[in-house]
Order: sequence, then C-alpha cells, then structure tokens
Amino acid sequence: MSMKNDPVFLPSLELREKGHWRKQQIPNLLNFQMRFAVYVPENLERPAPVLYHLGGMLCSEQTFIQKSGFQRWAAHYGIIVVSPDVCPRVNLGVDNNTIEANGESYYVNAVKKPWSKNFQMYSYVNEELPSIIQENFNVNKDKQSIMGHSMGGHGALISALKNPGKFRSVSALAPVCNPSQSPGIQVILKCYFGDDLKTMEKWDSTCLVADYKGPELNILIHQGYNDVHKDDLGLENFISACKKAGIAASINIEEGYDHGFYFISTFIEQHYHHHAKFLCDS
Amino acid sequence: MSMKNDPVFLPSLELREKGHWRKQQIPNLLNFQMRFAVYVPENLERPAPVLYHLGGMLCSEQTFIQKSGFQRWAAHYGIIVVSPDVCPRVNLGVDNNTIEANGESYYVNAVKKPWSKNFQMYSYVNEELPSIIQENFNVNKDKQSIMGHSMGGHGALISALKNPGKFRSVSALAPVCNPSQSPGIQVILKCYFGDDLKTMEKWDSTCLVADYKGPELNILIHQGYNDVHKDDLGLENFISACKKAGIAASINIEEGYDHGFYFISTFIEQHYHHHAKFLCDS
Repeated sequence: MSMKNDPVFLPSLELREKGHWRKQQIPNLLNFQMRFAVYVPENLERPAPVLYHLGGMLCSEQTFIQKSGFQRWAAHYGIIVVSPDVCPRVNLGVDNNTIEANGESYYVNAVKKPWSKNFQMYSYVNEELPSIIQENFNVNKDKQSIMGHSMGGHGALISALKNPGKFRSVSALAPVCNPSQSPGIQVILKCYFGDDLKTMEKWDSTCLVADYKGPELNILIHQGYNDVHKDDLGLENFISACKKAGIAASINIEEGYDHGFYFISTFIEQHYHHHAKFLCDS
Repeated sequence: MSMKNDPVFLPSLELREKGHWRKQQIPNLLNFQMRFAVYVPENLERPAPVLYHLGGMLCSEQTFIQKSGFQRWAAHYGIIVVSPDVCPRVNLGVDNNTIEANGESYYVNAVKKPWSKNFQMYSYVNEELPSIIQENFNVNKDKQSIMGHSMGGHGALISALKNPGKFRSVSALAPVCNPSQSPGIQVILKCYFGDDLKTMEKWDSTCLVADYKGPELNILIHQGYNDVHKDDLGLENFISACKKAGIAASINIEEGYDHGFYFISTFIEQHYHHHAKFLCDS
C-alpha cells in the first residue's frame, strides 16, 4: 500500500483553499477493504494536527464530509481531518435486519462469531487507521483529537477514555453515552459480546469514566433538547458519572435541535474552536 | 391549500437560530404535485427579503439545503430562502434515458408534447411559486433575488433577464449560459421546442442579454477553472454578449475548483454577501 505514490485524488472534492481529499481501499485487520476520507488543508508548512471524526449509524465516510460544513474550520485552523466509514460493509450471511446491513459497529472489538472476524472497529480506529495516516500524511502524531456523532460520539468517548493522554481533546454531538443500560442498544451489543454485561461495560463511557485516570480529557458535548433518541443516549448518566469521578466536561443541551445533520452543521464550528484550543496552541 | 393552517414542520430540519423548514405538496400549473423547501430565519421582525435558489440536474429540493451550508448566511442576513425541486417527477412513458428521469427541465416552458403538459417550470418558478410563498410566508415581495447552480444558474439568469426589475440581484454558480449553442444541451431543448433555434434563443441568457432593457441586473457569477463541463456552459459567450450590450457582471473564475458541491459550499458565502447588498440595504 502506498498512497503517496498512488494517491486517488477526487477532483469533485476540491475545496476552499484548494484543500483536497484522498480516498483509498486497502486490506486491513478488519479483513475487509475499508474506505476513509481525508481532508488536507492547503499550504501546510509543518506537520499538522489531526482530528478523527467518527460517524453515526447509517452514515459512511462521505456523510460528514458532505453535510457538516467542517471544511471551513479545518481550513481556518490548519487541521487534517480523517473520516472513516463506520463499519466493514461485509456480508456475513445473516438476515437483512442485522447489524452490518444497518451500518453499525459501535466502534468496539466484537468477540462473538461471526462478528469477531471483521468487526474490530475499535482497534482499526485507534491503531491501524492512525498508523496509515501517520505514514501517508504530514501529521503531527503528538497532536491528535477525536470527535463523533451519535454512535460515533460513543466511539470517540470510549477511544479517549481507554487511551489516557492519546487525544488532546474529545468531543461529541448527541453521543451514545451509556449503551449497556439502553435496551435498544443492548440488542446490538449482545451480537458482539453475548449476554455478558461486564464485557459490555468495558465499552461504555459512563462505566469507563468512573475508573479513568489520566490527564484532562477536555470533553465537549452537545445534545439537542428535542432529540428523539434522548432516552437511548444516556447523557444524564454520563454527567452523573463525570461529577462523581471529578471529571470536567462541557455539556450543552440546545433547545429546538434534534439528532440530525442540521444540528451537526450548526454546532460544528464550536467543536472546531474547542479542538483548536488544544491542537493549535503551540 | 393552506400552509398557514396546516404547515408541515420537519423536526429534522431545525437549524441555527432555530430557523425552520416547511415542505408541502400541492397540485399546480405543472399538473403535478411539486415539492419545495423553505428556510425561515427565526425572530423576523418584519416582512423579510426572499432568495430563490434553483438547483442543477440530478438535484432535488433537498440537495442545496443539505450540502451548501447557506443557512449560516441566510440566518445572518435574515433572508427567507426557497429551494424548489428542479422538475416535475412525472412519468411520461418515455424511455429511461430521457429528460424527466434525469431531473432536468432547464426551467423553460415546453411547447412540444408530451413535455408541454407538465414541463412549465419557468412559469412555476416565476409566477406560481412566488405567489404561494407570498401568501404563506412573511416575505417582502419588493425584495426578491434569485440564484442557481449549473442548469439552475441558467434558470436564474433567464428569470432575471426576462423580468426586468423583478429581482434585485441575480447570481449563479457554474451556470449554463448559452444552451442554444451547446450541442449536448440542444438535444434536451429539442425535446421541449423541436428544431426551432429561434425559440431556443428566447430561453438563452447570452441571446437575451443582447436585448435586455431595464434596471441594473447586479449579476454575480462564479465558475471553477477546472470545471469539466466548461465547454457546455458557454460563459465566454455570455461575457462577450454582456460587454457588447454594456451590461455589468462580476465574473469570477476560480482555479482548482470544479462543478461540484464543494465548489458551491466554498463560494456560497460570497453569493449571500452579494444578494444582501441589494436585499438588506434599507
């Protein structure tokens, strides 16, 4: 795999300040070719900070880059942005209503068959993908942050909580915060982990925050007051757990906003200002 | 039809400053139910200016509102924005490769059967739709402007040129400017008009500009230097015709940009600044 020597430039994706996108497909630890999108601001004079964005259910690597309008801020701050697809698009031969058909993964490492072969998204996002990015783009590996929406917000939070000091900041829009206590999400996690609640809790931000030891996480969260998925997100439990553990988090509930992409495109600016404070301060 | 009494609010479309969208389906002069999207900024204290946006081929009323990021500027300036679908989605019983299947209309009034029954988009956009908007939204009917992308840029330009004084300003991103001279577009126009070049020229900005008499048009145009459709757009012919007719136009060719939505989302800000000069100056 050499992206430097054989980059795929997408001319339709050129953008403000002539930043460009690349896209690639390579075999990886998921045993499946994965797609991701990378935004590289033009005229970077030195290794740039990098921000990973994890998408929500039913999204692909394209959704965030087409609908959020983040490019204005990534260009402004000179941040390289990486947007992976949300799960392997593999056909496991299970029926149409099951997970892979719905674009889920919860960014965990599955242990149960048939999921365990391909659904290792946590390791992909935290290990393999960053190493591909560091090899192929001019990133400063000491300046990385992570964010996400919904299921991807959960992915961002657990990634930060399970890797103290790895990310300078973490943010989430309408994140799933306490999946092991959500009956709807438990159904999905049981596919990956079976009925073992203790294992589920190892992938649950609200549980992880209780035991977190490490540097400041620099958490920013927005949730729409009118989010129809509010009950499944479990933000109140996460807030309680943060308070109990003495972990600071900026939590913002926004009246009139729901779970959708207009909510994201409205608050994306604030998330970039947040990450820039920790990524661009040198 | 009463939208005031029976508005369709789309909770997923709430946005910055809690502006909201409405959507409706009504029978109309196109003999077909049409969809359109309307953005209404919050807290309007008086009748607001209105900007019509006409989409390009393959777009719907959703494309611009989801991908352009215009909301930031419409909210900033307090402009109501109307985004109609680009053509009636009617099945005319012609084969799959023909116009209606491809989301075209060129915003003209067709005279040939079977198109003439439904494809009256020029009258829809210039008469019926504005009257629906004026009846149902708090718009200032003396303050309206129009813009569009590609085929919709053509629609915006002919609408302004055929209605002197109706629009305070007109702008276009990568507009089709001289369709009667583009072999590829002639094929489509022949469906609507037959082989009569004279009729086609009545729907061609470059031809219309030669005879324009009326107040300043306040034209702003952007085109990507790397637009693969450049030869079909005919911008140079339009520029020549403007010069010959003594009509001012701000034309901007942007290196590195193509015909796509990242081009639009990059320059949309400048188009709102432009229209605001003429819509929001009192």
